[in-house]
Amino acid sequence: MKKLLRLSLLGLLLLCSVVVNGAQVPKYIFLFIGDGMGFNHVEATQIYAEKVGTDTGERSLLFPTFPVMTQVCTRSASHLITCSSAAATALATGEKTTNYVIGMDAEKNHGLKSLARQLKDKGYKIGIITSASIDHATPGGFYASQPDRSMYYEIGVDAANSGFDFFGGAGLLEPRSKRNPSAPCLYDLFNQKGYTMFRGMDAYNRATAKDKILLFPTDTVSKSLKYAMDRSAKDLSLPDLTKACLANFQETEKKGFFMMVEGGKIDWAAHAHDGGAVVKETIDFDQCIRLAYDFYKNHPNETLILVTADHETGGLGLGNSDMNLNIDLLQYQKCSQEALTAAMREMKSGKMIPSWEDMKAFLKKNLGFWEQIKITPREELELLVCYEESFLKKKSKDVVSLYAKDEPLAVAAIALLDKKASLGWTTKTHTGAPVPLYAIGKQAVLYSGRRDNTDMANVLRKLFLIK
Amino acid sequence: MKKLLRLSLLGLLLLCSVVVNGAQVPKYIFLFIGDGMGFNHVEATQIYAEKVGTDTGERSLLFPTFPVMTQVCTRSASHLITCSSAAATALATGEKTTNYVIGMDAEKNHGLKSLARQLKDKGYKIGIITSASIDHATPGGFYASQPDRSMYYEIGVDAANSGFDFFGGAGLLEPRSKRNPSAPCLYDLFNQKGYTMFRGMDAYNRATAKDKILLFPTDTVSKSLKYAMDRSAKDLSLPDLTKACLANFQETEKKGFFMMVEGGKIDWAAHAHDGGAVVKETIDFDQCIRLAYDFYKNHPNETLILVTADHETGGLGLGNSDMNLNIDLLQYQKCSQEALTAAMREMKSGKMIPSWEDMKAFLKKNLGFWEQIKITPREELELLVCYEESFLKKKSKDVVSLYAKDEPLAVAAIALLDKKASLGWTTKTHTGAPVPLYAIGKQAVLYSGRRDNTDMANVLRKLFLIK
Repeated sequence: MKKLLRLSLLGLLLLCSVVVNGAQVPKYIFLFIGDGMGFNHVEATQIYAEKVGTDTGERSLLFPTFPVMTQVCTRSASHLITCSSAAATALATGEKTTNYVIGMDAEKNHGLKSLARQLKDKGYKIGIITSASIDHATPGGFYASQPDRSMYYEIGVDAANSGFDFFGGAGLLEPRSKRNPSAPCLYDLFNQKGYTMFRGMDAYNRATAKDKILLFPTDTVSKSLKYAMDRSAKDLSLPDLTKACLANFQETEKKGFFMMVEGGKIDWAAHAHDGGAVVKETIDFDQCIRLAYDFYKNHPNETLILVTADHETGGLGLGNSDMNLNIDLLQYQKCSQEALTAAMREMKSGKMIPSWEDMKAFLKKNLGFWEQIKITPREELELLVCYEESFLKKKSKDVVSLYAKDEPLAVAAIALLDKKASLGWTTKTHTGAPVPLYAIGKQAVLYSGRRDNTDMANVLRKLFLIK
Repeated sequence: MKKLLRLSLLGLLLLCSVVVNGAQVPKYIFLFIGDGMGFNHVEATQIYAEKVGTDTGERSLLFPTFPVMTQVCTRSASHLITCSSAAATALATGEKTTNYVIGMDAEKNHGLKSLARQLKDKGYKIGIITSASIDHATPGGFYASQPDRSMYYEIGVDAANSGFDFFGGAGLLEPRSKRNPSAPCLYDLFNQKGYTMFRGMDAYNRATAKDKILLFPTDTVSKSLKYAMDRSAKDLSLPDLTKACLANFQETEKKGFFMMVEGGKIDWAAHAHDGGAVVKETIDFDQCIRLAYDFYKNHPNETLILVTADHETGGLGLGNSDMNLNIDLLQYQKCSQEALTAAMREMKSGKMIPSWEDMKAFLKKNLGFWEQIKITPREELELLVCYEESFLKKKSKDVVSLYAKDEPLAVAAIALLDKKASLGWTTKTHTGAPVPLYAIGKQAVLYSGRRDNTDMANVLRKLFLIK
C-alpha cells in the first residue's frame, strides 16, 4: 500500500509536470467575448431564459453551467475603467495599455503581438468573428497595432496584413482612408492579400474558395449586425458567422485553430440602457457558444472554450425598488430601442403625425404597455408629455449614447419598461466592475481563481511555451 | 512505465474515493458572510486598499486572493430577490425558504436543522459571531426555526436552547417578550442553560469560565456594533469577537469547530447608500478573515475557510459618468452617515443653530469638501438649500432606509461624496445579483464552479455523510 501510494504520487507528479511543461496544449481554442457583459447581464438573461425561455426553447443559458467559473479584473494601464480597445489589447496580447490605444504598449512606442498572431505562426487557423465591424476595438485587438482605436482605415490595413483565415462581421467602417485619399481601398488590399469577400450567407454557401475569407452582410451601410430581436431570417447573424467559420476550420485546419467571437452588441444595448436588447443579445451569444460546445463534445480532450467580457457596461443592477425582479416583462418588448426610434422617426416624417391614441397602440404592440404591462396614469402622463414635446412641438433633441442617437419617446418608453422589469443603471458608459469568466475543456482548470484580463492570453502562452 | 501509470491511476482513484466518501472532512470550518457584499462592494474596497491602504497598512484585501473563486445564486423560495433570513436559512440549512421565514421550510410547516446544529451533534464547537445582534436574520439562520425573522424573542429562546458554544454580537433585540410579558427574560434563560454573559473585552479577558459564552458590548442599547469608521479603541469590534471566539475554541475544542462570522453592517451601510462605510466595513471584515487565515496557515490540512455573501445590497455600480473611478476620495470621509446624522441632530437641538459657514466647516472636516474635494457652486447651492430646509425652516423629514433614519443634509452630503467617488446605486434594498464566493483550504476545491447558496451547507453535509 505504501509503495502504491508512493507510485501514485509519482504519477501525480508526472501528470503535473506534463501540465506545467506545456506539452498538453489545446488544439482548438474558442474565446468568446461578451462585450460589456457583466455578472448581472448574464444573470438577467439566465432568469429570462428560466422564466420565459429562449426563441429556440432553451430554459437556461449554457455557458454559466461550465465547470470553471471566476471573476476577471478589467482595469487598463491608464484608467480603473477600461475602454474596449485597451481591454481587447489585454485579452489578446496579455499586456495592459492606455485607453483608446489598440495593440500597442501604454506609451504607444511599439506594437504588441497577440497570442492569435503567435498561434498563426505555429500553423493554427485564426478566425475573428464579431457582431460589430471587424475593425472595431474588440476584434482589432487581436491583429492591429495602432495608437488610436478610431483609426479604422489603418486597423483595416493591419487586418489585411494579418494573414488570419476568417473575418466575419458587419464589414469595414472606413474602406477608404479619410486622412490619405490616395491610399488604396481596403477591399482591393484584402483582395491582393488573397482574401475573398462574401456578402451574405447565400453567396458564401455557393462559393468553393474557402481560404482567407471575409464574410459580411448584404447590407453595406450598417455599422453592426442587426440586433437579434430586430433581424429577420435573411439577415446575417452572429451564430451564422460562428457556424460558417467553424465549418470552414473543421474542413481546412491541420494543426488546430483559434476563434474569437465577440457578442459586440450586448455592449451597444447596455450603452443605450435597452434591457430587452441586452437579454436577447446575450441569448444570441449563448447560441454561438452552443455551437462551440457541440464541437467540444466531439473533441473533449483537445478543445478549450473560454467565455468572458472585456468590461461591464451600464452599471446594471438587478433590482430598483422591492424584492421583485420582473425580468419576464421584457418578453413584451418586440424590438430594440434603435428599431423603435427608426419606426417613430418614420411616423414623424410622414404627412400625418400620429395621434396619441395611435402612439399608444404602437407602444402596446411593441412593448405590451396597457395590455400585459400595467401603466399608471402618472406614467402615461410622462409618456404623453414626452410625445407632445417630440411629435407635436418638435422641441426634443435626440438622446445620445455611445453608439446611438435615439428618439426621446423611444428612450422614455424603454426606460419605463426597464423600470417595470426592476432593472437599474448607474452610468451610460463602462464601469470598473469585475466581469465573469466561464471555462470548459482542455486546461480550463488553469483559469480557476481570481483572474486579470491579461491572463486570457498569458495562461495559454505559458502552455505553448511562447514568450 | 505502463505499470507505474496503472498504479498511479489506481492511487488517484483511491484518492478520489477518499474525497467522495467523506473521510476527508475539514476539522476547522470558517464561514464568513459579508451581508449585502456583492462583487462591486469587494472590488470598490480592493481598489480603496490599493490606492489608499487600510488602517493597518495593507495594500490589498486578503480574501479575494483565495485560490477558489466563483459566484453564488441567492434567490429564495418565494422571490428572485432574497431577504436576509431566507438567505441565511439557505446558507445554514441547505434548503430554500420563503422571504422573512427563518430556519423553517417554505410553507412554515417544520423546522430545518442547520449544518451547524448537526456538527454540534458530532462534537464540534459552534461559534456565531456578528456585528448585528445575535438574534438578527443571518446569525439566526444557524440555530433558529421561526415563521418570521422579526420574532426576536422566540429566536433568542432558540439561541439559548441551541447549546452552541460562543455567541458574539451586539446583544439581544428583545430580551423580554413583547407578546408574552410573563415569559422568562432571555438573560435568565441563557443563564439557566449554562451561558455566561460578558459585556466588553475587559470583562471577558478577566474571566476564567470559557464555556458557553455570550460576548456583547458594554453599551446595552445599540442594535449593532458601531461602524468600524466610528468606533474608538474601547468599542467592541467584529475582529475582537472573532479573535476571542477563535482563542476560546483553540483552547477548548476536542473534535473541531465551526465558526460563522457575519460582517452585518456592510449591508446596513449599503441600505443607507453610504459608500465610505461599505468600504470600511469590508476592510474590517477582511481583518476577521486574516485571523482565520493565520489559523489556517498553522492547520492547512484541517481547515476550510469560505467567504461569501447572503445577497447584494444597493445595486452598487462602479462608475457613474466617465472612465474615472475616484474611490480614493472616500478616504476623506471620517465618519458614517449615521454618525454625521447624530452630530447634525446635536447641532440642531442646541441653543445656537449653526450658520452655513459653521456647517461648511463641519462638512470640510468630516468629508473633505472644498478642501481635498472640489465642490462646484451648483453642488454647494444644493447642499445650502438642503441645510436651509432642514436647519432653518425645519421642514425636512428624516430619510428612512431599512436600518436608519438619517438627517437629510447628512444624506445629501454622503450622496454627493458617493457621486464624486464615481459610485452609483440602483435600489435602497437588496438585488438579485449573484454574489462572490472565495474559498481556501481543505476541500475548498469542491466549491468550484457556479454555486447555489444551498451548496454552502450541502457540499459539506455530503462530505460529513449527514443527511
